[in-house]
Formats: sequence, structure tokens, C-alpha cells
Amino acid sequence: MTTAPVVSTRTTQRRGRPRDDRLDATIVNATIAEVGAKGWGGATIEGIAARAGVGRGTIYRRWPSKTELFQYAAAAVTRPVEAPDTGSFVDDLFSAVLPIADMLTQPDLAALLPSLLAEAANDASIRQTLRTFVARSRQQAIEAVERARRRGDIVQSTDAETLVDMLAGALVYRRLLLGETTDAAAVRVLVRQAVQSCSTSEAIEENS
Amino acid sequence: MTTAPVVSTRTTQRRGRPRDDRLDATIVNATIAEVGAKGWGGATIEGIAARAGVGRGTIYRRWPSKTELFQYAAAAVTRPVEAPDTGSFVDDLFSAVLPIADMLTQPDLAALLPSLLAEAANDASIRQTLRTFVARSRQQAIEAVERARRRGDIVQSTDAETLVDMLAGALVYRRLLLGETTDAAAVRVLVRQAVQSCSTSEAIEENS
Repeated sequence: MTTAPVVSTRTTQRRGRPRDDRLDATIVNATIAEVGAKGWGGATIEGIAARAGVGRGTIYRRWPSKTELFQYAAAAVTRPVEAPDTGSFVDDLFSAVLPIADMLTQPDLAALLPSLLAEAANDASIRQTLRTFVARSRQQAIEAVERARRRGDIVQSTDAETLVDMLAGALVYRRLLLGETTDAAAVRVLVRQAVQSCSTSEAIEENS
Repeated sequence: MTTAPVVSTRTTQRRGRPRDDRLDATIVNATIAEVGAKGWGGATIEGIAARAGVGRGTIYRRWPSKTELFQYAAAAVTRPVEAPDTGSFVDDLFSAVLPIADMLTQPDLAALLPSLLAEAANDASIRQTLRTFVARSRQQAIEAVERARRRGDIVQSTDAETLVDMLAGALVYRRLLLGETTDAAAVRVLVRQAVQSCSTSEAIEENS
């Protein structure tokens, strides 16, 4: 069974030493396919190596353990596109949240989430992978709120974590509990609602 | 292994004909314990009957199939307390959303959710149970938004579903992805933020 690649060469990260980005992307995609087929607990380095067409040593030279490979793969998959500083809170937040919605729309990735959650309940290293995945996926949105706060666009006491919980939460809840994806237009509706919840009255008047 | 009862006699529903509410509650609790032990797919009427200390016939006379029993149990567990019409949008929404947070705080129930999600992906009847569960858990919050709309407390174009997705979503996202529960004080913070996102300016001034 083959799976369309989820991660392209461009989206892999560099560490300190030179890496073969294309090989890294191949291994990340093999990891996703292996986890999709066997679950997080059942996936093995042997299986990933076979899917990637490389030896086990090639993987172990890069990542000393399955946990580290999983965390690298989670980070590669969730690395947001460079979110621009547009000077508009709505636009910044939209750019930061859209990749989360897009990720949840990809069937291969969305299909991994329920089993990841089920296995994370019983396995600390899978839980750690999940936390890495979640923290990366929300980072740009948190930064967009902080920039808006510094500009004075939002009420100074606004809690960035709560605001991002509501946005990312709505997307995850729709996908997992309602079975619905959220397209770009619907992401914009969500973001406008969230922005409205914390904008200073001057900013609301400018936007309306 | 015994499990503390999740559902008390009071929280079961009546259908058209007379029921033994205490027996219904016993069977619902046995269902939750069985699913917790064997998963949704592995749970059997035999196992539930044994845990409840009743014969299979007693269960089949009430629910003709496992799916119907699961849906009844999901509805019993998620039936919100009677949410009062206080005339205040913040208070109504708080009363409607708090039971969702409380449900996610109960370890027995919260532990069922990831496996329910994982199994729902591959089983239409489990998916149907999940939809029943979700629809019931959000119903009071949707009604609170509609009452606020009729009173003119919120912008008339406010989308109740989106607002409730953000609130319920934040709670589910925190529990499943961040591993955090939300206490009553934090639910109030969330609700205030959501109310702020759609209040008419008159209502905002009254509240501040």
C-alpha cells in the first residue's frame, strides 16, 4: 500500500550539521505510512526503513530512537508556513490558523490523530510526540496575538492561550467529533469572531 | 475491576412506557465499564449483562441492539442539567457549557473518548453514537445563543454553531491534545471571551 507523500523536501528542518533533506522527507513520509498501517505503538524502525528503502542504520544515525524520529516527524508535519507580519491581526491570525485547518483536511494526517490520542493515553513517549505536535501547530497563532497586543489592537489582558485554544479547538472538535473539515472561508469566519472577542473598540470600529 | 457509577438514577431518561430507572442506570454504568475495559468494538451485551448482574434478555427487552444501547448510554451520560433561562447570556452559556467541562474532567468518561474516536473512524454505528453524544452535549449552549439573539443581546448575524464549536472545542482540545482539564473559573473566562465576540456594544458596556 502506498501513500501520497505528506511532507515535501522543502518542509523538512535543518539541524546543525548538513543533512540530506530529500532523504529526511522520505523517512518522515515512511514514518507516517508505517504509523497509519500499524499504529504508533506497532510502528517499528525496521518497518519504516523498509518503506523508505533504506537500512536501519541510516535511520539510527539520524535519530537515536523511535521517539526522537516520531518527534522529528511530528515537527516536520506541523511546521507552519512562515506566517507573515502583515500588521493586521485578522490577517496574521488567519495565516497562522489556516495551516492547522489544512492539516486536519489531509486524510492521511487526520486519520492518524484518533489513534495517536488513544495511544498517548497509555504511553508517555507518544504523549510527548503529541505535545511537540500541538505546541508547534499553535506557535504562530500565539505570536500573532502577542504582536496585536504590542500594537494595542487588543485588550491588554487578553489571554493568548485561551484565544488559540478556542480557534484550534474549534478546528479539532469539528474534525474529530463532528466529522467536518473547515475551509479557508470558514477559517476566516472563526478568526473574525475570535478577533472581535478581544479587539479594543477603536480596532472594532476600524474593521466594521 | 469496579468503576464508580457515572450515571445516577436521576439522570436517566424516561421513554413513553414505565421504566425501572434504577435498573436503566445500572445497565448504563455497566456499559461504560464494559466499553472502558474492551473498547467500543469489543464490548458485548453478554459482558454488559454480567457486569450489571442481569440476564441478556433484560437488556434486549429494553434495547434491541448494542448500537441502540450505546446511543442511550451516550445520551444518558451527556444529558445536561436543566440549563436555566437567567436572562443573562453569560450565565446561560456558562450553565450550558460547564457540564461539558465537568464530563471531560471525569476520568472514566474522558478515558473513553480517544478510543471512541479511533473506533468511530472505522465503524458507522460507533460514529452514530458519537454524533448523538456530541449533539446532546451542545444543545443547551445552542439554545442559550438563540435566546440571547431573540433578546437582542448579540449581533443578529452571530452563528450559534460557530460560537459553540469554539467553546466546546477549547474544552475538548485542552483535554485531548493538551492533557488539561478546565475548571469552573476557567470555563467562565472562556464564556466571557465568547460572549464578548458577539455582543452588541450596548451589552458590552453594561457588562464592563
